[in-house]
Amino acid sequence: MTSACTSAKSARPPSQPLVRLAELEIDPAQLESYKAFLREEIATSIRVEPGVLNLYAVAVKGQPAQIRIFEMYADTAAYEAHVQTPHFLKYKTGTQDMVKSLRLVETDPVLLGAKK
Amino acid sequence: MTSACTSAKSARPPSQPLVRLAELEIDPAQLESYKAFLREEIATSIRVEPGVLNLYAVAVKGQPAQIRIFEMYADTAAYEAHVQTPHFLKYKTGTQDMVKSLRLVETDPVLLGAKK
Repeated sequence: MTSACTSAKSARPPSQPLVRLAELEIDPAQLESYKAFLREEIATSIRVEPGVLNLYAVAVKGQPAQIRIFEMYADTAAYEAHVQTPHFLKYKTGTQDMVKSLRLVETDPVLLGAKK
Repeated sequence: MTSACTSAKSARPPSQPLVRLAELEIDPAQLESYKAFLREEIATSIRVEPGVLNLYAVAVKGQPAQIRIFEMYADTAAYEAHVQTPHFLKYKTGTQDMVKSLRLVETDPVLLGAKK
């Protein structure tokens, strides 16, 4: 079983992907604006950062202001680079007054199964 | 932005992937056995089911019996077929006494960003 997203990893030494779940509650009055920031940040990260493998953002059904993001980076260095990029900082600064709460759940992969 | 996992979707009419988060607490005394069942179920599902796109299983860091599974299916029909497969039923039956709690979080995708 291998990730579908190996193009970035193939240029790196073998290492465990860094996988994280972000659980956010957004101010409902600013939800559409928040999602615009989020979509731009995700699209840019996937396009320009080789080490950003997946950023899957979803809303809890029936609770649209409850956002969950499943984040997968090639390794710790890729994550540390990501949070210093201009597009991430633009998202972080632009949404800071929209985010009512943020919980980051660090994880250890059990099996990351994906279509090749 | 498109999913990396479009091979199964390309043969279907355009439809939104079904994305779900499963949050499980496992009996710590049976954790290794549970993970063996889970790994086999994931590997088989990804290999034989075109509509099972991702099954990303992780443990919460420092709480190894807290399992989170980020599940992505091509569509509702793919999910409904999945839960009737012999390998899923083997997992479900084999682990029923290992799972202390199970919460299924249904979602609406915001943006599913992945490397092509």
